[in-house]
Amino acid sequence: MGESWVNSAERIGSDLHLELTAPGGRRAALTDALREAVRGGRLAPGTRLPPYRSLAADLGVARNTVADAYAELVAEGWLTARQGSGTRVAERSEPLRPRTRVPKRTPPRARGPLHDLRQGAPDASAFPRTAWLASYRRALQQAPTEAFGPGDPAGRIELREALTEYLARARGVRTAPGRIVVCSGFAHALRLLFRPGAGVLRGPLAVESYGLPFHRGLLAEAGVRTVPLPLDEDGADVGRLGRERAVLLTPAHQFPTGGPLHPARRAAVADWARARDAVVLEDDYDGEFRYDRRPVGAVQGLAPEQVILVGSVSKSLSPAVRLGWMVLPERYVEGVLAAKGEREAWASVPDQLCLADFVASGSYDRHVRRMRQRYRGRRNRLVAALAERAPHIGVTGVAAGLHAVLRLPSGTERSAVEAARWRGVALDGLAGFRHPEAGPDAIGHDGLVVGYASPSEHAFGAALDALCEALPPAPS
Amino acid sequence: MGESWVNSAERIGSDLHLELTAPGGRRAALTDALREAVRGGRLAPGTRLPPYRSLAADLGVARNTVADAYAELVAEGWLTARQGSGTRVAERSEPLRPRTRVPKRTPPRARGPLHDLRQGAPDASAFPRTAWLASYRRALQQAPTEAFGPGDPAGRIELREALTEYLARARGVRTAPGRIVVCSGFAHALRLLFRPGAGVLRGPLAVESYGLPFHRGLLAEAGVRTVPLPLDEDGADVGRLGRERAVLLTPAHQFPTGGPLHPARRAAVADWARARDAVVLEDDYDGEFRYDRRPVGAVQGLAPEQVILVGSVSKSLSPAVRLGWMVLPERYVEGVLAAKGEREAWASVPDQLCLADFVASGSYDRHVRRMRQRYRGRRNRLVAALAERAPHIGVTGVAAGLHAVLRLPSGTERSAVEAARWRGVALDGLAGFRHPEAGPDAIGHDGLVVGYASPSEHAFGAALDALCEALPPAPS
Repeated sequence: MGESWVNSAERIGSDLHLELTAPGGRRAALTDALREAVRGGRLAPGTRLPPYRSLAADLGVARNTVADAYAELVAEGWLTARQGSGTRVAERSEPLRPRTRVPKRTPPRARGPLHDLRQGAPDASAFPRTAWLASYRRALQQAPTEAFGPGDPAGRIELREALTEYLARARGVRTAPGRIVVCSGFAHALRLLFRPGAGVLRGPLAVESYGLPFHRGLLAEAGVRTVPLPLDEDGADVGRLGRERAVLLTPAHQFPTGGPLHPARRAAVADWARARDAVVLEDDYDGEFRYDRRPVGAVQGLAPEQVILVGSVSKSLSPAVRLGWMVLPERYVEGVLAAKGEREAWASVPDQLCLADFVASGSYDRHVRRMRQRYRGRRNRLVAALAERAPHIGVTGVAAGLHAVLRLPSGTERSAVEAARWRGVALDGLAGFRHPEAGPDAIGHDGLVVGYASPSEHAFGAALDALCEALPPAPS
Repeated sequence: MGESWVNSAERIGSDLHLELTAPGGRRAALTDALREAVRGGRLAPGTRLPPYRSLAADLGVARNTVADAYAELVAEGWLTARQGSGTRVAERSEPLRPRTRVPKRTPPRARGPLHDLRQGAPDASAFPRTAWLASYRRALQQAPTEAFGPGDPAGRIELREALTEYLARARGVRTAPGRIVVCSGFAHALRLLFRPGAGVLRGPLAVESYGLPFHRGLLAEAGVRTVPLPLDEDGADVGRLGRERAVLLTPAHQFPTGGPLHPARRAAVADWARARDAVVLEDDYDGEFRYDRRPVGAVQGLAPEQVILVGSVSKSLSPAVRLGWMVLPERYVEGVLAAKGEREAWASVPDQLCLADFVASGSYDRHVRRMRQRYRGRRNRLVAALAERAPHIGVTGVAAGLHAVLRLPSGTERSAVEAARWRGVALDGLAGFRHPEAGPDAIGHDGLVVGYASPSEHAFGAALDALCEALPPAPS
């Protein structure tokens, strides 16, 4: 049997290009080679390995080298060593099963439709790589050492200071760094606020009768019942608020129907919250993008102790940068921090420092301005295309945001979505955004939610053409 | 009354250094100035504002400019406009309450002790800023456009490919990019795996009788009962595994007691999982840091279909970079992805791309090697200091990781922790890591868990001195 061991050892060596002359690497190389041989099945389970001395002689290495390699593989469980029966390949070193059921995953948008007009994402091709990188470099070079230790769950003070200044200026938010908690985005904020058993807020939560199904699902998962408020042309009818202790609103630009909350209702909901010690959850998802005039300030500015404002960079910059912020009334700060945990477990600290620099240096303003121009142009092109090619289709809501709602003739929504799909256009009908318990309300109609931000600049025209072709004809 | 309005308007202008000559900024400047005046209380709630024409004349601007500014502030809720009663400051523009109860937050470590010997954190001063920044630059420059759109919840393919190669080489892990899911760290992985109502795994979960209280708390919050397995010098006694469907282990370096799981037990737990269709959750928290020999490979390599391996950069690089990975048996992949959601909501995509480059370019290996040298040196200095100054205090466990356990004379643990605190040393006693339901076991003893990685290099000597002074004297 001695002969066969020699052959086996030689074969292992040559198969794996075993470089025993590599500096300091003889034991390591041997260990690797043996492990690979077991792994790959060339040394089958139960196979007895050659004695140290044989293999050492075959390979021209010291006996201890072989002994060490064997011991290491025994420790890892690849080999077993029993008194009297030598060293063998362990029985449980099963080969990795071939991947049969797991499909190769590619990013959703990469494998996506020809024309992506789904709402929600900004133009990925417009990410300001150069300016972001410049901020990242400055942030990393200037960061104090403790920035690379465990993070403060409130978020980096640099970012909270920059946001305090920015939000006051751009959104009329009145806050202080100690009242801001950094998070990974709006969904994370909802999870922190409504954590089952330990939440800062409790249901039932009043919501607008149209909204993001993802948010409703997330709340349902947290055991929070949502109660729909009817919408009319002045926004959510906050006069209907009853026993709820919290209401979730999109005051700047109702999502997705597109109207701003009427000033009287802004005031009324603040009064309601004050009177009932309730809270307004203000989803300021696209407040920076208003095209017909300056952005309407946040409701938070009217009632900082009654409003939790949540924002993020998902629409203004990129959903790839997982950063958002919660602007909190004083009484919620400690509870939200407790929900986040003793240390920052979510938001990347280097990214936080980078965003702080990006905002404080004015790069964020410049980027938002640039994107406002771009999206305004897209919205205008959409409106013009419809006026020319489908004048019977109206666009509802104010000129703002990253999406528009097209009002369709009654009963045509589903077939319009389908017709668009045939033409390679992905978009959603309005119906999917409707709260399942919503009653009849003034703005219930067939519609398409058209996200005009997502395509790159050169692809937008073709997307518009395809969309127009998919629209239902004018009623004759 | 006309006269008083003029004065008021002039005062507002001069107080706020209203630059009405700024290009294109007259309306904006006026709006800001008025908003600030309301906010700051100079224009009290209920105050009637001057008619458009008066203010326009006073300020030398067009009447429409004033009308627009008023309308904007009405829309934001700062002002109210009623037919017949003119424009007034709204009643609900409450001033921001002074911050009384919210303390100024500084990062935990920044306001921390003189000598931080708590376990868990690497040396923050050793973060490889230059190499990380170089990877970030390359990653950002080379990233495809879709990287800045909504992210794949599995994580970037570039990172999963780099990890597949790295983990095979460094940790003996057998996997494929399709079986890796990126997450924010070990705690996030636990949350994804044991999501209440929709978890991939269910309790009860067997755990080692010593472990991180934070993990136990997190599991308890998710409704998962943990069942302690006794520890002895061969690690967790996996022969006691019963009806549990999952076991959480730290096989490379038991946390915190410091021993590796015996090879026979590595094999036994894989067999147990295979026989019962159960799963081993392998917390590979510091597997790269073994100082007496090459790292022991992961148990995952023995049984890829029975082991979920979870790792992160929290110890190897920095807890500020919120990235970890789950290496999954095929049958769990879709469930974990469903738990993560339709899009990446957590892990920063730029950071993922950066880490992919950092690993693939060899920078990660170089950093780990450098830190291994540094931490080995620290551990040696700790052992030498004890041998010289407190020879009755033993160090348990193997030479590995970022912490060591000091065995104390019975009954001295609490006072040793306290004595250390007096000397400015923060560290934990062993008792706090013990599972509250753990029975008596072979390694139950008084001890200190000394994290030797956290102090910067120049501060380590003083930390050691302070520690030695706090240790209980030899029994006489």
